Amino acid sequence: MPRIDQRAHDQLRPVDYILDIAPHATASVLIAFGNTRVICAATIQDEVPRWMKIQGVSGGWLTAEYSMLPYSTLDRKERDSSKGRPDGRSIEIQRLIGRSLRAVVDLKKMGQKTLSLDCDVLQADGGTRTASITGACIATAIAFNRLLEKGKLTQQPLTKKVAAISAGILKGETLLDLCYVEDRDADVDCNLVLTETGDFVEIQGSGEEATFSQAQLDSMLVVGRKGISELCALQQQAIESAMKPAQPQDLQKLAAFFGKR
Amino acid sequence: MPRIDQRAHDQLRPVDYILDIAPHATASVLIAFGNTRVICAATIQDEVPRWMKIQGVSGGWLTAEYSMLPYSTLDRKERDSSKGRPDGRSIEIQRLIGRSLRAVVDLKKMGQKTLSLDCDVLQADGGTRTASITGACIATAIAFNRLLEKGKLTQQPLTKKVAAISAGILKGETLLDLCYVEDRDADVDCNLVLTETGDFVEIQGSGEEATFSQAQLDSMLVVGRKGISELCALQQQAIESAMKPAQPQDLQKLAAFFGKR
Amino acid sequence: MPRIDQRAHDQLRPVDYILDIAPHATASVLIAFGNTRVICAATIQDEVPRWMKIQGVSGGWLTAEYSMLPYSTLDRKERDSSKGRPDGRSIEIQRLIGRSLRAVVDLKKMGQKTLSLDCDVLQADGGTRTASITGACIATAIAFNRLLEKGKLTQQPLTKKVAAISAGILKGETLLDLCYVEDRDADVDCNLVLTETGDFVEIQGSGEEATFSQAQLDSMLVVGRKGISELCALQQQAIESAMKPAQPQDLQKLAAFFGKR
Amino acid sequence: MPRIDQRAHDQLRPVDYILDIAPHATASVLIAFGNTRVICAATIQDEVPRWMKIQGVSGGWLTAEYSMLPYSTLDRKERDSSKGRPDGRSIEIQRLIGRSLRAVVDLKKMGQKTLSLDCDVLQADGGTRTASITGACIATAIAFNRLLEKGKLTQQPLTKKVAAISAGILKGETLLDLCYVEDRDADVDCNLVLTETGDFVEIQGSGEEATFSQAQLDSMLVVGRKGISELCALQQQAIESAMKPAQPQDLQKLAAFFGKR
Amino acid sequence: MPRIDQRAHDQLRPVDYILDIAPHATASVLIAFGNTRVICAATIQDEVPRWMKIQGVSGGWLTAEYSMLPYSTLDRKERDSSKGRPDGRSIEIQRLIGRSLRAVVDLKKMGQKTLSLDCDVLQADGGTRTASITGACIATAIAFNRLLEKGKLTQQPLTKKVAAISAGILKGETLLDLCYVEDRDADVDCNLVLTETGDFVEIQGSGEEATFSQAQLDSMLVVGRKGISELCALQQQAIESAMKPAQPQDLQKLAAFFGKR
Amino acid sequence: MPRIDQRAHDQLRPVDYILDIAPHATASVLIAFGNTRVICAATIQDEVPRWMKIQGVSGGWLTAEYSMLPYSTLDRKERDSSKGRPDGRSIEIQRLIGRSLRAVVDLKKMGQKTLSLDCDVLQADGGTRTASITGACIATAIAFNRLLEKGKLTQQPLTKKVAAISAGILKGETLLDLCYVEDRDADVDCNLVLTETGDFVEIQGSGEEATFSQAQLDSMLVVGRKGISELCALQQQAIESAMKPAQPQDLQKLAAFFGKR
Repeated sequence: MPRIDQRAHDQLRPVDYILDIAPHATASVLIAFGNTRVICAATIQDEVPRWMKIQGVSGGWLTAEYSMLPYSTLDRKERDSSKGRPDGRSIEIQRLIGRSLRAVVDLKKMGQKTLSLDCDVLQADGGTRTASITGACIATAIAFNRLLEKGKLTQQPLTKKVAAISAGILKGETLLDLCYVEDRDADVDCNLVLTETGDFVEIQGSGEEATFSQAQLDSMLVVGRKGISELCALQQQAIESAMKPAQPQDLQKLAAFFGKR
Repeated sequence: MPRIDQRAHDQLRPVDYILDIAPHATASVLIAFGNTRVICAATIQDEVPRWMKIQGVSGGWLTAEYSMLPYSTLDRKERDSSKGRPDGRSIEIQRLIGRSLRAVVDLKKMGQKTLSLDCDVLQADGGTRTASITGACIATAIAFNRLLEKGKLTQQPLTKKVAAISAGILKGETLLDLCYVEDRDADVDCNLVLTETGDFVEIQGSGEEATFSQAQLDSMLVVGRKGISELCALQQQAIESAMKPAQPQDLQKLAAFFGKR
Repeated sequence: MPRIDQRAHDQLRPVDYILDIAPHATASVLIAFGNTRVICAATIQDEVPRWMKIQGVSGGWLTAEYSMLPYSTLDRKERDSSKGRPDGRSIEIQRLIGRSLRAVVDLKKMGQKTLSLDCDVLQADGGTRTASITGACIATAIAFNRLLEKGKLTQQPLTKKVAAISAGILKGETLLDLCYVEDRDADVDCNLVLTETGDFVEIQGSGEEATFSQAQLDSMLVVGRKGISELCALQQQAIESAMKPAQPQDLQKLAAFFGKR
Repeated sequence: MPRIDQRAHDQLRPVDYILDIAPHATASVLIAFGNTRVICAATIQDEVPRWMKIQGVSGGWLTAEYSMLPYSTLDRKERDSSKGRPDGRSIEIQRLIGRSLRAVVDLKKMGQKTLSLDCDVLQADGGTRTASITGACIATAIAFNRLLEKGKLTQQPLTKKVAAISAGILKGETLLDLCYVEDRDADVDCNLVLTETGDFVEIQGSGEEATFSQAQLDSMLVVGRKGISELCALQQQAIESAMKPAQPQDLQKLAAFFGKR
Repeated sequence: MPRIDQRAHDQLRPVDYILDIAPHATASVLIAFGNTRVICAATIQDEVPRWMKIQGVSGGWLTAEYSMLPYSTLDRKERDSSKGRPDGRSIEIQRLIGRSLRAVVDLKKMGQKTLSLDCDVLQADGGTRTASITGACIATAIAFNRLLEKGKLTQQPLTKKVAAISAGILKGETLLDLCYVEDRDADVDCNLVLTETGDFVEIQGSGEEATFSQAQLDSMLVVGRKGISELCALQQQAIESAMKPAQPQDLQKLAAFFGKR
Repeated sequence: MPRIDQRAHDQLRPVDYILDIAPHATASVLIAFGNTRVICAATIQDEVPRWMKIQGVSGGWLTAEYSMLPYSTLDRKERDSSKGRPDGRSIEIQRLIGRSLRAVVDLKKMGQKTLSLDCDVLQADGGTRTASITGACIATAIAFNRLLEKGKLTQQPLTKKVAAISAGILKGETLLDLCYVEDRDADVDCNLVLTETGDFVEIQGSGEEATFSQAQLDSMLVVGRKGISELCALQQQAIESAMKPAQPQDLQKLAAFFGKR
C-alpha cells in the first residue's frame, strides 16, 4: 500500500532548516520534517538554578520547554497561558527533550551556566517531538561552538550528537517518520532517540488501544536506525554551515522553505 | 555483585495485596512490590464526559490519576494541591496508566460509563508506576466482575490482563524490578507494560545522562518478560479471591503486610 | 427511636487502628471510627519555615493538611489538585487539626523541627475531622516517643493527649459520634476537641439552617465528654502498643479491619 | 484590671453604621464595632446557580464572601487576587457568614433569586467576622424589605434577626467584644452567633495554644448573650431607619464616624 | 442636545471627597465624581522590593492596584480572587495609575520606602480610572506631608499635582467627564492625565469600533484641560484641609455624600 | 544628534515581511520593523463565543493574543504558562491589538465566525506592538480575501487598513519608530494607530517619569502620520502579493530577512 505522500516505508520526509531565525538566542534553528515546523532555540545564561547554589552542586544546568503555537494546528489550539495551566502532553514532551539532551551534554564542562532549550511548534503535522529533539541538538551544538569561539567555554560540553525519529505500524506495515494522518491511524507508535553512534537514549513504544509483538518492535527499530543515521548527517551539515558566513545557495533553501503557499 | 536485598538479578520483590482497602470504590487493592505500596481504586460511574455526549461518541470512558501521598517518600513531599499545579512526573505517569488500561479494555462494551482509576502511593521505594498499573488491572477486573454479577454490565469489557515491571542496567548488570536505591544509581531504566499473552502495550527505556545498546535493551526485555509472567499469575489469584468470601488464611497475608514495623 | 446501626445514643462507633501503615512517616496510623477510615501520618523534619528563621522565632513548628481521597466518598470526589485550587471545607478542617494539636504540643521543646500532620480520608462516613484529630494525636505521640528514644529530642513536647468527637441533635434526640446519614439529617452538629483532663481545646456547634438552645448545647457536651474519655483510653493503648514488638493478636484486629467486604 | 479602652468587661465597643454606602447593591451598610469597619452589601439577583437548575432545586440561594482590603491592617496586606489564591482564614469566615444567615433566611420564600453577601473590611481592629455577620443581617433585612415594597417578593424570607459577638479569656478575666490587642493576647477566643430570640446559630470556641474549662465557657456565654441582645436592638433601629427618609440627625452619626482623624 | 444630567458639555460632575475613610492607611480618601465613588489609599512602608535591594537601586518604589468591589456595578461583578486570576482591564488601569503618579513623584527623595496606592471602586458610573488617579494624588500628597511632619521624610517627593479626566465624542458632540451611559454610547473615549502646570503625563484616546479626526482630538483636549484645571484646585483644597483639624462644616459634605439614598 | 542606526528623525526602520510562515493559519505573516520580528497569524473559525449565542448577538467576533517568545529578548524571558498567570503588559497590548482591528472590521459582515489574531514576538527590539498591529492587519486582509475567493464570505468585512507606529521624545528631539535602546532612554513614548485615511483609531502617549507639552505631542503626530502613510503602502503591496503565486524575486526578500546572522 503506498503512503499518503508516496514515500518509501523507510523514507524520511524532506528535512530542511533555517539557522538563527531568532537571533537573540545564543543559537536557533527553524527545522522542518515535511510540513512539521519547529523553532528550536538554545539560550545560554551565566547562572544556575537557586537549588544548585544552595546544595553546592557544581557544573551547569539544562532545561527544556515545548509549546505548540496556537495556529500550528488545523483547529486553533488554545494557549497554555490562557488556560492558566500547562498541558499534560506538553509537559511529557519537554521532559523527554530535556532527558535526551542531558544524555549527550556533560554538565560539568558547562561551568555555572544554564542552557535553556525552547521548542515552539509553528506547524504540526506529526513528529513534533522528534523534530524538536533533532533541532534542539543542532541549536545546542552551535551555541556551544559560539561560546568556545568567544572563550566563554574552555571545553566542548556536547559529547556526541543525538537525533530522534518516529516509527509505527499502520495496517500491518512498518513506517518511518509518520505524518499526522498516518500517526492518527497507526496502531502502534514508537519514538526513538539515538546518538550518532547508534546507542539508545530513549525508546518509547506505545500501542494506544492496541498491542504489538516483539517482531513488530524489531522492525520499527530497523527503519528507525536508518532514519537516525540520515538525520545525524544533516545535523552535521547544519552545524558546519553555521561556522561559515551565509552562502548564496542558502537562497534555494529559503525558497524551498517558504515558496510553497 | 549481589543485590541490595540479596535477590537474584531476574527476581521480583515479594508482591502482596489487600483487597477492598477503600470500600466506597467499586473495587480497590493495596498492592505492594516489596516496600512500595500503592492504593489502586477503580470507581465506575454511570456517566461519560460532556465532550463524548456532545460529539455523540458511544461506549464508555477510562481515565487515570496518580499521586504520591506526602508521607510516601523519605523526605516529605509537598502536595500537588498545595503547589496549586500538577507535578510533571505525576501527569506523565497517569497518562501511562490510562494508556495501559485502555489497551486491554473494550470501551464499547462498557456502555455509558466512566471507569476512574486512582493510584495513590502510600510508600515509595521504586517501581510505583509498575505497581500502579499492575494493581489498577486487578481493581479493574474485580470492578467489572462485580458489575457483571449485578447485571449492570452484560459483556466483559476487559479483554486480557495487563501488568508492568521495570528493568534496568546497574554497573553493567541487568536487573529486574529495581528498588529506589537501585533505580537511583542505574544507568538505564526501562518500564515494560505487557499483556498476559506477551504482547507489548508500552515500552519506555531511558538512559538519563547515559545511553544503552541494543544488546542491553534485549537483556532487559528477557528479564522483564519473566517478571510480567509471574505478575499475571498473581493478578489471576487476586481476582479469583475477590469472588470468594474472605478466608481465614488472609490473616497471614495481613500480618505479612503490616506486622513489620 | 433506635439509631441506624442500633447504637445507644451516647455510644461511639467501634474504633480500630493499624499502626505504621505508611512506614516512611515518623509515625502513622490508619484509624477507623466505624466505616470512616483516615490515614494520619506524623512526619518530623529537621527544619523550620523560612519566616521563623528570618524573624528569629525559636522552637519548632506544627502544620496540618487534610484531604479526602477521591474514592473515599460514595460518589467519586474530584481531586483538589485537578481543580487547581484547595477546597474551602478542607482548608477549614486542616486549620482545626493544626490548632487542636498546637494546644497540646510545646513547640519550644521541639527544637528547630517541623511536625507535619497529614490526614487523608480513605473512607468517609461522617466524623472524618474528629477521627483525624484523634488519630493525629496518636501519630504525634508515637513520633515524639521515637525521637526521644533515638536521642533526637531531649524533652517530651506533647503535654497531654487530645481527642475529638461529634455530637448532634436529630429529631430532638442528642446523639454521639454521628455517621454520615445521621449527620446529613441532623439539625445541629457539634464538634468537640478536649484534652484527656477534660478541658476544651475547641468547640464548634453549628445549626445549618436551624438553631439550638442552651439545653441542647449542654446535652451535647454531656455525651461528648463521655466519648472523649473513651477515645483517650484507646489512644493510650495505641501509643503503648507501638512501644512493643508487633503481637500475634494484632491479626485479629487486622481481620476485623479488612475482613468485611 | 482595666481594659485598654476603659470599657467594662461585659461592654460592647461603640457600634455605628452608615446605610447605603454602596448604592448599586440592593442594600449596604458600613458598620463599625469601635475601630473595626466593615462594608456589608446585600445584592439580590434574579437567578440561581446552574446546579440548582440542573438538579431542579426550588427556592433561592444565599452566598457570602469576605475579604480584607489591603489597607485595613496596620501592615498592608497583600490582595487575594495578587496571590492568585484565596486565603484560608477568609474562606473559613465567609463560610461562617453564609451559614449564619442561611439559618434565619427561608430560601423557599426567595423564589428563583440569589442573595450575595459581600463583607469587605475597611479597618481591622478585632471582631471583623462578628461585625460582618451583624452588618450582613442588617443589609439582608433592608434588601428584603425593599423587594417586598416593590412587589418583587411576596413573603418575608427573613425569619428572625441574627447577630454575632466575640468573647474571650484574657489573664483569667472574661471579656466581651475583644479589640485586636486583646484578641492577640487572649488565651481563649469564642465567637457566638445567636438569633434575637436567644438561640444559638453557631458557637466557635478555641484555645489556640491553650485550653479552657466548662466554667470559662459558661462565663463567655453570659457576656456574649448580653452583647447579642444589645446588637439586635441596634439592628432593629438601623432597619427601621432605612424605611424613613434620611434625617438631619444622621449628620451627628456621620460626624461621629468620620470626624476623628 | 442636553446631557443626561443637564450638565454643560464642558462641565465636570460634582466632585466630593471624605478624608481618612480607612485610617490604617498612611492617608486615604473616598472621592466621588458624581455617582462614581472610589476609595484611594496611600500606604507607605519602610521597605523596597527584593529586586531593588539585589540590584542595588537606591531610592523608593511606587506601586498601584485597582479593583472594582463586587457590588460597585449594577450587575454584581465576580471578585478577581474568586476567578483566580486578575482581570485584564484592572491590570491595564492599575498600570496607568502607577505611571501617572510616578511621573510626579521623585523616588530618590523617598528613601528606602514603598508607596502602595490602592484604588477600590465602591460605585461605578463611568470615569473610575480618572477618579482613581485624581484621588490617589490627594492621598499621596497627604501621606507625604504626614511623614514630613513626623520627620520620616526630609524632602517632599511630590514634585507637582497630577489629575485625570475623561472626554469623549457622543453623537458628534464633545463632552467632558462622561458618566457610564454616555461612555457606553460614545464613539470616542479619551482619558487625559495632566499635571497642574498643564503638561501631559498620559493621553489615551480610543475609538472602539470607530475612528476620530485631528479636529475631534483637539476639541477633547480643550475641554479636558478645563476639567483638569478645576480638579487641581479641588485637590489643593483637600490637601490643605487634611492639615487642619476636622471642621464642623464637614458635616455638610458628609450629608451631601451619604444623604441621597 | 544622529540616531543610533543613522536614520533620519522621521524615518522608519526597514520593514520586511514573509507571508504564510505558519500555513495552518488562514493567513500569516512574519513582519519585521528593523530587528523586531513578529509572527502575526489570522485564524478564522466557524463559530462564535458561547455568550454571543446565548445573548443572540448576530455577526462575528474578533479577538487578539500577544506573547513574547522566551528567546525574543536579550535576557531570556520566562513563559507566561510557566508563571501560571498572564503578564500585565501582554494583556494590555493584546487588548490594544483587538481594539485596533475591531475599529476597521465590520463584524456584521463576518457571519457566525471568529477571527483570532495571534501575535508572537520572535525578536524584540522596540515597537513590538506597532509591528503586531501592522502585521495583524495584513494577515486579516489576506484571510478575508481567501474566504471571499472560496465563497465562505460574501462581503468584505475589512472597511479600511489600519497601521501603527511609535514616536517619542529623546533628548528633546522627536523621533519616529524607536528601537529598543531609543525607547528605553526616551522621555516620552507615543503609540499611534491610524487608518489609511488618516483617522485616529488610538493614541497612547505616555511620559513615564516625565511629562510632555502640547507642542511635543503635535510634533510626534506629524512624524507619526508620515510613518503610518508609508506603512499603509507596504501593507497594500503585501496584500496584493498574496494574490499572486510566489515570485522568484521573493528570494531577495528572504535573503534580506535571514542572511544577516
